[in-house]
Amino acid sequence: MNNSQYKIAILGAGNVGYQLAWHLHNSGNQIVQIFSRRLPAAKWLGNLMDIPTANDFSEITTDADIYLLTVNDDSVEEVASKLHLGDKVVAHTSGSVSMDALKNVSTNYGIFYPLQTLSRNVSVDFAVIPFCVNGSTPFALETLKNLASTLTNKIVEVDDEKRFAIHVAAVFANNFTNHLFSVSQMILEKSGLSFEILKPLINETVRKVQNHDPLNVQTGPASRHDDHTIEKHLEYLKKDGRFAEIYKLLSNEIRQYAKEPV
Amino acid sequence: MNNSQYKIAILGAGNVGYQLAWHLHNSGNQIVQIFSRRLPAAKWLGNLMDIPTANDFSEITTDADIYLLTVNDDSVEEVASKLHLGDKVVAHTSGSVSMDALKNVSTNYGIFYPLQTLSRNVSVDFAVIPFCVNGSTPFALETLKNLASTLTNKIVEVDDEKRFAIHVAAVFANNFTNHLFSVSQMILEKSGLSFEILKPLINETVRKVQNHDPLNVQTGPASRHDDHTIEKHLEYLKKDGRFAEIYKLLSNEIRQYAKEPV
Repeated sequence: MNNSQYKIAILGAGNVGYQLAWHLHNSGNQIVQIFSRRLPAAKWLGNLMDIPTANDFSEITTDADIYLLTVNDDSVEEVASKLHLGDKVVAHTSGSVSMDALKNVSTNYGIFYPLQTLSRNVSVDFAVIPFCVNGSTPFALETLKNLASTLTNKIVEVDDEKRFAIHVAAVFANNFTNHLFSVSQMILEKSGLSFEILKPLINETVRKVQNHDPLNVQTGPASRHDDHTIEKHLEYLKKDGRFAEIYKLLSNEIRQYAKEPV
Repeated sequence: MNNSQYKIAILGAGNVGYQLAWHLHNSGNQIVQIFSRRLPAAKWLGNLMDIPTANDFSEITTDADIYLLTVNDDSVEEVASKLHLGDKVVAHTSGSVSMDALKNVSTNYGIFYPLQTLSRNVSVDFAVIPFCVNGSTPFALETLKNLASTLTNKIVEVDDEKRFAIHVAAVFANNFTNHLFSVSQMILEKSGLSFEILKPLINETVRKVQNHDPLNVQTGPASRHDDHTIEKHLEYLKKDGRFAEIYKLLSNEIRQYAKEPV
Protein backbone atom coordinates (compact mmCIF):
# COMPACT_ATOMS: atom_id res chain seq x y z
CA MET A 1 0.00 0.00 0.00
CA ASN A 2 1.05 3.50 -0.75
CA ASN A 3 0.43 6.59 1.31
CA SER A 4 -0.91 9.00 -1.28
CA GLN A 5 -3.80 10.82 0.23
CA TYR A 6 -6.39 12.06 -2.20
CA LYS A 7 -9.43 14.24 -1.77
CA ILE A 8 -12.28 12.29 -3.25
CA ALA A 9 -15.87 13.04 -4.20
CA ILE A 10 -18.15 9.99 -4.46
CA LEU A 11 -21.03 10.45 -6.90
CA GLY A 12 -23.61 7.74 -6.21
CA ALA A 13 -24.59 6.41 -2.79
CA GLY A 14 -25.46 2.78 -3.57
CA ASN A 15 -23.57 -0.37 -2.62
CA VAL A 16 -20.42 0.55 -4.54
CA GLY A 17 -20.41 4.18 -3.36
CA TYR A 18 -20.89 3.06 0.20
CA GLN A 19 -18.10 0.48 0.14
CA LEU A 20 -15.64 2.72 -1.71
CA ALA A 21 -16.31 5.69 0.58
CA TRP A 22 -15.74 3.52 3.61
CA HIS A 23 -12.60 1.74 2.42
CA LEU A 24 -10.97 4.78 0.77
CA HIS A 25 -11.53 6.71 3.98
CA ASN A 26 -10.01 3.88 6.04
CA SER A 27 -7.01 3.69 3.73
CA GLY A 28 -6.05 7.31 4.40
CA ASN A 29 -7.90 9.21 1.71
CA GLN A 30 -10.29 12.05 2.44
CA ILE A 31 -13.86 11.80 1.21
CA VAL A 32 -14.88 15.43 0.71
CA GLN A 33 -18.40 14.91 -0.63
CA ILE A 34 -21.10 12.31 -1.21
CA PHE A 35 -23.39 13.21 -4.09
CA SER A 36 -26.56 11.36 -4.98
CA ARG A 37 -29.50 12.39 -7.10
CA ARG A 38 -31.58 10.90 -4.29
CA LEU A 39 -31.05 13.07 -1.22
CA PRO A 40 -32.01 10.42 1.38
CA ALA A 41 -29.34 8.05 0.03
CA ALA A 42 -26.69 10.77 0.11
CA LYS A 43 -27.75 11.86 3.61
CA TRP A 44 -27.76 8.33 4.95
CA LEU A 45 -24.20 7.69 3.88
CA GLY A 46 -23.02 11.24 4.61
CA ASN A 47 -24.38 11.11 8.15
CA LEU A 48 -22.91 7.68 8.76
CA MET A 49 -19.45 8.88 7.79
CA ASP A 50 -19.79 12.55 8.74
CA ILE A 51 -19.21 13.77 5.17
CA PRO A 52 -20.94 16.71 3.43
CA THR A 53 -23.62 15.68 0.97
CA ALA A 54 -25.23 17.13 -2.15
CA ASN A 55 -28.05 16.14 -4.47
CA ASP A 56 -27.98 18.99 -7.00
CA PHE A 57 -25.39 18.98 -9.77
CA SER A 58 -24.68 22.68 -9.13
CA GLU A 59 -23.54 21.81 -5.60
CA ILE A 60 -20.84 19.36 -6.66
CA THR A 61 -17.59 20.31 -4.96
CA THR A 62 -14.67 21.74 -6.93
CA ASP A 63 -12.33 20.80 -4.11
CA ALA A 64 -11.72 17.10 -4.90
CA ASP A 65 -8.69 15.58 -6.67
CA ILE A 66 -10.66 12.59 -7.93
CA TYR A 67 -14.35 12.14 -8.72
CA LEU A 68 -15.65 8.58 -8.60
CA LEU A 69 -18.90 7.96 -10.41
CA THR A 70 -20.44 4.94 -8.64
CA VAL A 71 -23.96 5.12 -10.07
CA ASN A 72 -25.59 2.11 -11.77
CA ASP A 73 -24.20 1.16 -15.17
CA ASP A 74 -27.48 2.31 -16.70
CA SER A 75 -27.06 5.84 -15.30
CA VAL A 76 -23.41 6.59 -16.09
CA GLU A 77 -24.09 8.35 -19.39
CA GLU A 78 -26.95 10.40 -18.08
CA VAL A 79 -25.06 11.59 -15.00
CA ALA A 80 -21.88 12.18 -17.04
CA SER A 81 -23.79 14.47 -19.40
CA LYS A 82 -24.38 16.83 -16.48
CA LEU A 83 -20.81 16.88 -15.16
CA HIS A 84 -18.15 19.38 -16.25
CA LEU A 85 -14.98 18.93 -14.27
CA GLY A 86 -12.30 20.63 -16.42
CA ASP A 87 -9.12 18.59 -16.00
CA LYS A 88 -9.99 16.92 -12.69
CA VAL A 89 -9.54 13.15 -12.65
CA VAL A 90 -12.92 11.45 -12.99
CA ALA A 91 -13.56 7.71 -13.24
CA HIS A 92 -16.54 5.45 -13.26
CA THR A 93 -16.72 2.10 -11.48
CA SER A 94 -18.75 0.13 -14.01
CA GLY A 95 -17.68 -3.10 -15.67
CA SER A 96 -19.79 -2.67 -18.76
CA VAL A 97 -19.72 1.02 -19.68
CA SER A 98 -17.14 2.40 -22.12
CA MET A 99 -14.46 4.65 -20.67
CA ASP A 100 -15.35 7.25 -23.30
CA ALA A 101 -18.72 7.76 -21.63
CA LEU A 102 -16.73 10.31 -19.58
CA LYS A 103 -14.90 12.04 -22.43
CA ASN A 104 -16.92 15.26 -22.16
CA VAL A 105 -16.60 15.44 -18.38
CA SER A 106 -12.85 16.10 -18.12
CA THR A 107 -9.66 15.72 -20.11
CA ASN A 108 -8.47 13.27 -17.43
CA TYR A 109 -10.97 10.45 -17.24
CA GLY A 110 -10.74 6.76 -16.65
CA ILE A 111 -11.89 3.54 -15.04
CA PHE A 112 -11.83 2.42 -11.41
CA TYR A 113 -13.68 -0.89 -11.45
CA PRO A 114 -13.52 -3.14 -8.36
CA LEU A 115 -14.03 -6.75 -9.42
CA GLN A 116 -16.12 -7.78 -6.45
CA THR A 117 -19.70 -8.28 -5.30
CA LEU A 118 -20.43 -5.38 -2.98
CA SER A 119 -23.39 -5.19 -0.64
CA ARG A 120 -24.02 -2.55 1.95
CA ASN A 121 -24.58 -5.10 4.72
CA VAL A 122 -21.60 -7.37 4.07
CA SER A 123 -18.10 -6.24 4.99
CA VAL A 124 -15.39 -7.23 2.57
CA ASP A 125 -11.60 -7.32 2.52
CA PHE A 126 -10.58 -4.85 -0.17
CA ALA A 127 -6.93 -5.96 -0.08
CA VAL A 128 -7.78 -9.05 -2.15
CA ILE A 129 -9.98 -7.28 -4.70
CA PRO A 130 -8.57 -6.82 -8.21
CA PHE A 131 -9.12 -3.25 -9.40
CA CYS A 132 -9.42 -2.79 -13.15
CA VAL A 133 -8.10 0.64 -14.14
CA ASN A 134 -7.60 2.64 -17.28
CA GLY A 135 -7.04 6.30 -18.12
CA SER A 136 -7.46 8.73 -20.99
CA THR A 137 -4.06 10.29 -20.19
CA PRO A 138 -0.93 9.05 -18.41
CA PHE A 139 -1.82 11.40 -15.54
CA ALA A 140 -5.35 10.01 -15.18
CA LEU A 141 -4.06 6.43 -15.33
CA GLU A 142 -1.26 7.02 -12.79
CA THR A 143 -3.59 8.84 -10.42
CA LEU A 144 -6.16 6.02 -10.51
CA LYS A 145 -3.44 3.39 -10.10
CA ASN A 146 -2.11 5.28 -7.09
CA LEU A 147 -5.58 5.48 -5.63
CA ALA A 148 -6.14 1.76 -6.17
CA SER A 149 -2.79 1.02 -4.54
CA THR A 150 -4.11 2.52 -1.29
CA LEU A 151 -6.67 -0.32 -1.27
CA THR A 152 -5.08 -3.35 -2.96
CA ASN A 153 -2.00 -4.61 -4.71
CA LYS A 154 -4.04 -6.35 -7.41
CA ILE A 155 -4.18 -3.64 -10.03
CA VAL A 156 -5.09 -4.70 -13.56
CA GLU A 157 -4.79 -2.25 -16.45
CA VAL A 158 -7.34 -3.30 -19.08
CA ASP A 159 -9.09 -1.74 -22.05
CA ASP A 160 -12.88 -1.56 -22.52
CA GLU A 161 -13.11 -4.87 -24.35
CA LYS A 162 -11.23 -6.88 -21.72
CA ARG A 163 -13.07 -5.18 -18.86
CA PHE A 164 -16.36 -6.04 -20.53
CA ALA A 165 -15.33 -9.71 -20.84
CA ILE A 166 -14.37 -9.70 -17.15
CA HIS A 167 -17.74 -8.22 -16.26
CA VAL A 168 -19.67 -10.84 -18.24
CA ALA A 169 -17.56 -13.64 -16.73
CA ALA A 170 -18.17 -12.18 -13.26
CA VAL A 171 -21.94 -12.37 -13.80
CA PHE A 172 -21.60 -16.11 -14.39
CA ALA A 173 -19.11 -16.67 -11.57
CA ASN A 174 -20.94 -14.63 -8.95
CA ASN A 175 -24.49 -13.51 -9.79
CA PHE A 176 -25.59 -16.77 -11.35
CA THR A 177 -23.86 -19.07 -8.86
CA ASN A 178 -25.37 -17.08 -6.01
CA HIS A 179 -28.81 -17.57 -7.55
CA LEU A 180 -28.17 -21.33 -7.75
CA PHE A 181 -27.37 -21.25 -4.04
CA SER A 182 -30.76 -19.57 -3.54
CA VAL A 183 -32.47 -22.32 -5.52
CA SER A 184 -30.72 -25.03 -3.52
CA GLN A 185 -31.85 -23.34 -0.31
CA MET A 186 -35.46 -23.23 -1.53
CA ILE A 187 -35.36 -26.91 -2.48
CA LEU A 188 -34.03 -27.88 0.95
CA GLU A 189 -36.50 -25.72 2.85
CA LYS A 190 -39.44 -27.27 1.02
CA SER A 191 -38.39 -30.55 2.62
CA GLY A 192 -37.85 -28.99 6.04
CA LEU A 193 -34.06 -29.06 5.70
CA SER A 194 -31.60 -26.27 6.45
CA PHE A 195 -29.24 -24.68 3.91
CA GLU A 196 -26.57 -25.28 6.57
CA ILE A 197 -26.12 -28.88 5.43
CA LEU A 198 -24.84 -27.73 2.01
CA LYS A 199 -22.15 -25.37 3.25
CA PRO A 200 -19.30 -27.90 3.38
CA LEU A 201 -20.14 -28.86 -0.20
CA ILE A 202 -20.29 -25.22 -1.31
CA ASN A 203 -16.98 -24.50 0.37
CA GLU A 204 -15.38 -27.49 -1.32
CA THR A 205 -16.81 -26.45 -4.70
CA VAL A 206 -14.81 -23.25 -4.47
CA ARG A 207 -11.75 -24.77 -2.83
CA LYS A 208 -11.47 -27.21 -5.73
CA VAL A 209 -11.21 -24.48 -8.36
CA GLN A 210 -8.36 -22.72 -6.58
CA ASN A 211 -5.91 -25.19 -8.10
CA HIS A 212 -7.90 -27.05 -10.74
CA ASP A 213 -9.68 -25.96 -13.89
CA PRO A 214 -13.39 -26.31 -13.15
CA LEU A 215 -13.90 -28.37 -16.33
CA ASN A 216 -11.50 -30.97 -14.90
CA VAL A 217 -13.28 -31.36 -11.57
CA GLN A 218 -16.88 -31.47 -12.79
CA THR A 219 -18.86 -34.17 -10.97
CA GLY A 220 -22.52 -35.19 -10.75
CA PRO A 221 -25.13 -37.06 -12.77
CA ALA A 222 -24.78 -34.97 -15.96
CA SER A 223 -21.00 -35.38 -16.11
CA ARG A 224 -21.49 -39.15 -15.63
CA HIS A 225 -24.20 -39.23 -18.34
CA ASP A 226 -26.40 -40.76 -15.63
CA ASP A 227 -29.71 -40.24 -17.45
CA HIS A 228 -31.77 -42.26 -15.04
CA THR A 229 -30.85 -40.00 -12.11
CA ILE A 230 -31.36 -36.89 -14.23
CA GLU A 231 -34.86 -38.13 -15.12
CA LYS A 232 -35.68 -38.76 -11.46
CA HIS A 233 -34.44 -35.28 -10.49
CA LEU A 234 -36.52 -33.67 -13.24
CA GLU A 235 -39.58 -35.61 -12.17
CA TYR A 236 -39.05 -34.32 -8.61
CA LEU A 237 -38.61 -30.72 -9.84
CA LYS A 238 -41.70 -30.83 -12.06
CA LYS A 239 -43.73 -29.28 -9.26
CA ASP A 240 -41.59 -26.17 -9.69
CA GLY A 241 -41.21 -25.86 -13.44
CA ARG A 242 -38.71 -23.03 -13.27
CA PHE A 243 -36.19 -25.04 -11.30
CA ALA A 244 -36.68 -27.90 -13.77
CA GLU A 245 -35.88 -25.58 -16.67
CA ILE A 246 -32.57 -24.51 -15.08
CA TYR A 247 -31.80 -28.15 -14.30
CA LYS A 248 -32.42 -29.25 -17.87
CA LEU A 249 -30.40 -26.51 -19.51
CA LEU A 250 -27.36 -26.79 -17.25
CA SER A 251 -27.35 -30.61 -17.31
CA ASN A 252 -27.38 -30.53 -21.10
CA GLU A 253 -24.50 -28.06 -21.06
CA ILE A 254 -22.43 -30.18 -18.68
CA ARG A 255 -23.00 -33.23 -20.87
CA GLN A 256 -21.51 -31.38 -23.85
CA TYR A 257 -18.20 -31.08 -22.03
CA ALA A 258 -18.20 -34.41 -20.20
CA LYS A 259 -16.30 -37.38 -21.48
CA GLU A 260 -18.40 -40.19 -22.90
CA PRO A 261 -19.47 -42.66 -20.21
CA VAL A 262 -17.25 -45.70 -19.76
CA MET B 1 -14.27 -39.64 16.37
CA ASN B 2 -14.79 -43.09 17.69
CA ASN B 3 -12.39 -45.99 17.61
CA SER B 4 -14.57 -48.79 16.27
CA GLN B 5 -12.59 -50.67 13.72
CA TYR B 6 -14.62 -52.35 11.04
CA LYS B 7 -13.65 -54.74 8.30
CA ILE B 8 -14.99 -53.21 5.13
CA ALA B 9 -15.49 -54.35 1.55
CA ILE B 10 -15.77 -51.56 -1.03
CA LEU B 11 -17.84 -52.51 -4.07
CA GLY B 12 -17.12 -50.01 -6.82
CA ALA B 13 -13.75 -48.43 -7.60
CA GLY B 14 -14.76 -44.98 -8.91
CA ASN B 15 -14.30 -41.59 -7.23
CA VAL B 16 -16.46 -42.41 -4.22
CA GLY B 17 -14.97 -45.88 -3.73
CA TYR B 18 -11.49 -44.46 -3.98
CA GLN B 19 -12.07 -41.67 -1.47
CA LEU B 20 -13.97 -43.86 1.01
CA ALA B 21 -11.37 -46.63 0.86
CA TRP B 22 -8.62 -44.13 1.50
CA HIS B 23 -10.30 -42.21 4.33
CA LEU B 24 -11.83 -45.23 6.08
CA HIS B 25 -8.41 -46.87 6.03
CA ASN B 26 -6.80 -43.73 7.46
CA SER B 27 -9.43 -43.51 10.19
CA GLY B 28 -8.55 -46.95 11.55
CA ASN B 29 -10.84 -49.27 9.65
CA GLN B 30 -9.59 -52.21 7.63
CA ILE B 31 -10.45 -52.41 3.95
CA VAL B 32 -10.50 -56.16 3.26
CA GLN B 33 -11.50 -56.09 -0.40
CA ILE B 34 -12.02 -53.82 -3.40
CA PHE B 35 -14.55 -55.21 -5.85
CA SER B 36 -15.25 -53.74 -9.26
CA ARG B 37 -16.94 -55.25 -12.28
CA ARG B 38 -14.07 -53.68 -14.22
CA LEU B 39 -10.90 -55.49 -13.16
CA PRO B 40 -8.46 -52.68 -14.12
CA ALA B 41 -10.30 -50.21 -11.86
CA ALA B 42 -10.26 -52.65 -8.94
CA LYS B 43 -6.58 -53.50 -9.55
CA TRP B 44 -5.57 -49.86 -9.79
CA LEU B 45 -7.08 -49.01 -6.42
CA GLY B 46 -6.15 -52.35 -4.83
CA ASN B 47 -2.51 -51.99 -5.85
CA LEU B 48 -2.38 -48.40 -4.68
CA MET B 49 -3.59 -49.37 -1.21
CA ASP B 50 -2.30 -52.96 -1.10
CA ILE B 51 -5.77 -54.47 -0.76
CA PRO B 52 -7.06 -57.71 -2.34
CA THR B 53 -9.29 -57.18 -5.33
CA ALA B 54 -12.07 -59.06 -7.09
CA ASN B 55 -14.15 -58.57 -10.22
CA ASP B 56 -16.41 -61.61 -10.12
CA PHE B 57 -19.44 -61.66 -7.83
CA SER B 58 -18.56 -65.21 -6.69
CA GLU B 59 -15.27 -63.88 -5.29
CA ILE B 60 -16.81 -61.31 -2.97
CA THR B 61 -15.40 -61.80 0.52
CA THR B 62 -17.53 -63.17 3.34
CA ASP B 63 -15.08 -61.74 5.85
CA ALA B 64 -16.27 -58.09 6.00
CA ASP B 65 -18.47 -56.49 8.68
CA ILE B 66 -19.77 -53.83 6.30
CA TYR B 67 -20.19 -53.79 2.52
CA LEU B 68 -20.26 -50.37 0.89
CA LEU B 69 -21.75 -50.22 -2.56
CA THR B 70 -20.11 -47.18 -4.21
CA VAL B 71 -21.14 -47.82 -7.82
CA ASN B 72 -22.92 -45.16 -9.91
CA ASP B 73 -26.52 -44.43 -8.96
CA ASP B 74 -27.57 -46.00 -12.23
CA SER B 75 -25.91 -49.32 -11.34
CA VAL B 76 -27.01 -49.83 -7.73
CA GLU B 77 -30.06 -51.96 -8.55
CA GLU B 78 -28.26 -54.14 -11.05
CA VAL B 79 -25.31 -54.84 -8.75
CA ALA B 80 -27.61 -55.33 -5.76
CA SER B 81 -29.54 -58.00 -7.65
CA LYS B 82 -26.37 -60.11 -7.70
CA LEU B 83 -25.45 -59.71 -4.03
CA HIS B 84 -26.60 -62.04 -1.26
CA LEU B 85 -25.02 -61.13 2.03
CA GLY B 86 -27.29 -62.77 4.63
CA ASP B 87 -27.39 -60.44 7.63
CA LYS B 88 -24.17 -58.53 6.93
CA VAL B 89 -24.51 -54.74 6.99
CA VAL B 90 -24.63 -53.38 3.45
CA ALA B 91 -25.14 -49.77 2.42
CA HIS B 92 -25.06 -47.79 -0.77
CA THR B 93 -23.59 -44.31 -1.11
CA SER B 94 -26.04 -42.79 -3.56
CA GLY B 95 -28.10 -39.66 -2.98
CA SER B 96 -30.88 -40.57 -5.35
CA VAL B 97 -31.47 -44.32 -4.99
CA SER B 98 -34.04 -45.70 -2.56
CA MET B 99 -32.70 -47.56 0.48
CA ASP B 100 -34.97 -50.47 -0.40
CA ALA B 101 -32.91 -51.13 -3.52
CA LEU B 102 -30.87 -53.25 -1.09
CA LYS B 103 -33.72 -55.10 0.60
CA ASN B 104 -32.96 -58.44 -1.04
CA VAL B 105 -29.23 -58.21 -0.32
CA SER B 106 -29.31 -58.51 3.48
CA THR B 107 -31.65 -58.04 6.40
CA ASN B 108 -29.35 -55.24 7.60
CA TYR B 109 -29.15 -52.65 4.86
CA GLY B 110 -28.92 -48.91 4.77
CA ILE B 111 -27.50 -45.66 3.47
CA PHE B 112 -24.00 -44.19 3.78
CA TYR B 113 -24.14 -41.06 1.62
CA PRO B 114 -21.31 -38.52 1.86
CA LEU B 115 -22.63 -35.09 0.90
CA GLN B 116 -19.55 -33.96 -0.98
CA THR B 117 -18.07 -33.67 -4.45
CA LEU B 118 -15.43 -36.38 -4.66
CA SER B 119 -12.79 -36.60 -7.35
CA ARG B 120 -9.92 -39.02 -7.46
CA ASN B 121 -7.35 -36.28 -7.97
CA VAL B 122 -8.51 -33.81 -5.32
CA SER B 123 -7.87 -34.53 -1.65
CA VAL B 124 -10.64 -33.53 0.69
CA ASP B 125 -11.11 -33.12 4.44
CA PHE B 126 -13.67 -35.74 5.42
CA ALA B 127 -14.08 -34.32 8.94
CA VAL B 128 -16.32 -31.52 7.59
CA ILE B 129 -18.45 -33.73 5.33
CA PRO B 130 -22.03 -34.40 6.41
CA PHE B 131 -22.83 -38.12 6.10
CA CYS B 132 -26.48 -38.98 5.48
CA VAL B 133 -27.27 -42.36 7.04
CA ASN B 134 -30.27 -44.60 7.41
CA GLY B 135 -30.82 -48.26 8.27
CA SER B 136 -33.39 -51.00 7.81
CA THR B 137 -32.82 -52.16 11.41
CA PRO B 138 -31.51 -50.48 14.57
CA PHE B 139 -28.37 -52.60 14.19
CA ALA B 140 -27.75 -51.50 10.59
CA LEU B 141 -28.36 -47.86 11.50
CA GLU B 142 -26.10 -47.94 14.57
CA THR B 143 -23.33 -49.70 12.66
CA LEU B 144 -23.41 -47.15 9.85
CA LYS B 145 -23.52 -44.26 12.32
CA ASN B 146 -20.51 -45.72 14.12
CA LEU B 147 -18.68 -46.08 10.84
CA ALA B 148 -19.50 -42.49 9.86
CA SER B 149 -18.29 -41.31 13.26
CA THR B 150 -14.81 -42.59 12.43
CA LEU B 151 -14.77 -39.99 9.64
CA THR B 152 -16.89 -37.01 10.72
CA ASN B 153 -19.07 -35.68 13.50
CA LYS B 154 -21.68 -34.41 11.04
CA ILE B 155 -24.03 -37.38 10.89
CA VAL B 156 -27.51 -36.75 9.54
CA GLU B 157 -30.19 -39.43 9.79
CA VAL B 158 -32.61 -38.86 6.90
CA ASP B 159 -35.22 -40.87 5.02
CA ASP B 160 -35.26 -41.43 1.26
CA GLU B 161 -37.34 -38.34 0.50
CA LYS B 162 -35.11 -35.93 2.42
CA ARG B 163 -31.94 -37.50 1.05
CA PHE B 164 -33.30 -37.10 -2.44
CA ALA B 165 -34.05 -33.39 -1.83
CA ILE B 166 -30.50 -32.96 -0.50
CA HIS B 167 -29.12 -34.63 -3.62
CA VAL B 168 -31.11 -32.40 -5.98
CA ALA B 169 -30.09 -29.29 -4.01
CA ALA B 170 -26.46 -30.44 -4.13
CA VAL B 171 -26.60 -30.65 -7.93
CA PHE B 172 -27.55 -26.96 -8.03
CA ALA B 173 -25.08 -25.91 -5.34
CA ASN B 174 -22.11 -27.83 -6.68
CA ASN B 175 -22.46 -29.35 -10.17
CA PHE B 176 -24.18 -26.37 -11.74
CA THR B 177 -22.10 -23.69 -10.01
CA ASN B 178 -18.93 -25.52 -11.03
CA HIS B 179 -20.13 -25.48 -14.63
CA LEU B 180 -20.74 -21.73 -14.39
CA PHE B 181 -17.15 -21.36 -13.23
CA SER B 182 -16.13 -23.28 -16.36
CA VAL B 183 -18.17 -20.90 -18.52
CA SER B 184 -16.61 -17.86 -16.87
CA GLN B 185 -13.15 -19.32 -17.49
CA MET B 186 -13.97 -19.89 -21.17
CA ILE B 187 -15.25 -16.31 -21.53
CA LEU B 188 -12.08 -14.90 -19.98
CA GLU B 189 -9.74 -17.07 -22.01
CA LYS B 190 -11.38 -15.99 -25.27
CA SER B 191 -10.20 -12.48 -24.39
CA GLY B 192 -6.74 -13.64 -23.36
CA LEU B 193 -7.48 -13.26 -19.65
CA SER B 194 -6.77 -15.74 -16.87
CA PHE B 195 -9.39 -17.35 -14.62
CA GLU B 196 -7.11 -16.26 -11.77
CA ILE B 197 -8.61 -12.74 -11.81
CA LEU B 198 -12.04 -14.10 -10.77
CA LYS B 199 -10.89 -16.09 -7.75
CA PRO B 200 -11.30 -13.32 -5.16
CA LEU B 201 -14.84 -12.79 -6.46
CA ILE B 202 -15.60 -16.52 -6.35
CA ASN B 203 -14.22 -16.79 -2.82
CA GLU B 204 -16.32 -13.84 -1.71
CA THR B 205 -19.43 -15.33 -3.35
CA VAL B 206 -19.13 -18.30 -1.03
CA ARG B 207 -17.98 -16.35 2.00
CA LYS B 208 -21.11 -14.20 1.74
CA VAL B 209 -23.49 -17.14 2.01
CA GLN B 210 -21.87 -18.47 5.19
CA ASN B 211 -23.86 -15.95 7.22
CA HIS B 212 -26.43 -14.54 4.80
CA ASP B 213 -29.26 -16.09 2.84
CA PRO B 214 -28.15 -16.01 -0.80
CA LEU B 215 -31.42 -14.32 -1.83
CA ASN B 216 -30.50 -11.39 0.43
CA VAL B 217 -27.05 -10.83 -1.04
CA GLN B 218 -27.88 -11.17 -4.73
CA THR B 219 -26.12 -8.48 -6.79
CA GLY B 220 -25.59 -7.77 -10.48
CA PRO B 221 -27.48 -6.37 -13.47
CA ALA B 222 -30.49 -8.72 -13.23
CA SER B 223 -31.07 -8.01 -9.55
CA ARG B 224 -30.89 -4.27 -10.35
CA HIS B 225 -33.27 -4.69 -13.31
CA ASP B 226 -30.50 -3.11 -15.37
CA ASP B 227 -31.88 -4.10 -18.77
CA HIS B 228 -29.46 -2.05 -20.77
CA THR B 229 -26.44 -3.91 -19.35
CA ILE B 230 -28.22 -7.25 -19.75
CA GLU B 231 -28.82 -6.42 -23.43
CA LYS B 232 -25.17 -5.51 -23.94
CA HIS B 233 -24.04 -8.74 -22.26
CA LEU B 234 -26.39 -10.80 -24.43
CA GLU B 235 -25.16 -9.04 -27.56
CA TYR B 236 -21.59 -9.92 -26.54
CA LEU B 237 -22.52 -13.58 -25.88
CA LYS B 238 -24.41 -13.98 -29.17
CA LYS B 239 -21.26 -15.42 -30.75
CA ASP B 240 -21.66 -18.34 -28.36
CA GLY B 241 -25.39 -18.97 -28.32
CA ARG B 242 -25.23 -21.55 -25.54
CA PHE B 243 -23.72 -19.12 -23.05
CA ALA B 244 -26.38 -16.58 -24.09
CA GLU B 245 -29.12 -19.09 -23.34
CA ILE B 246 -27.81 -19.70 -19.81
CA TYR B 247 -27.45 -15.95 -19.33
CA LYS B 248 -31.01 -15.27 -20.41
CA LEU B 249 -32.61 -17.97 -18.29
CA LEU B 250 -30.73 -17.19 -15.09
CA SER B 251 -31.13 -13.42 -15.47
CA ASN B 252 -34.88 -13.87 -15.87
CA GLU B 253 -34.94 -16.06 -12.77
CA ILE B 254 -32.99 -13.55 -10.69
CA ARG B 255 -35.37 -10.78 -11.78
CA GLN B 256 -38.33 -12.77 -10.42
CA TYR B 257 -36.85 -12.60 -6.94
CA ALA B 258 -35.34 -9.11 -7.08
CA LYS B 259 -37.06 -6.12 -5.61
CA GLU B 260 -38.50 -3.68 -8.09
CA PRO B 261 -35.95 -1.07 -9.16
CA VAL B 262 -35.99 2.19 -7.20
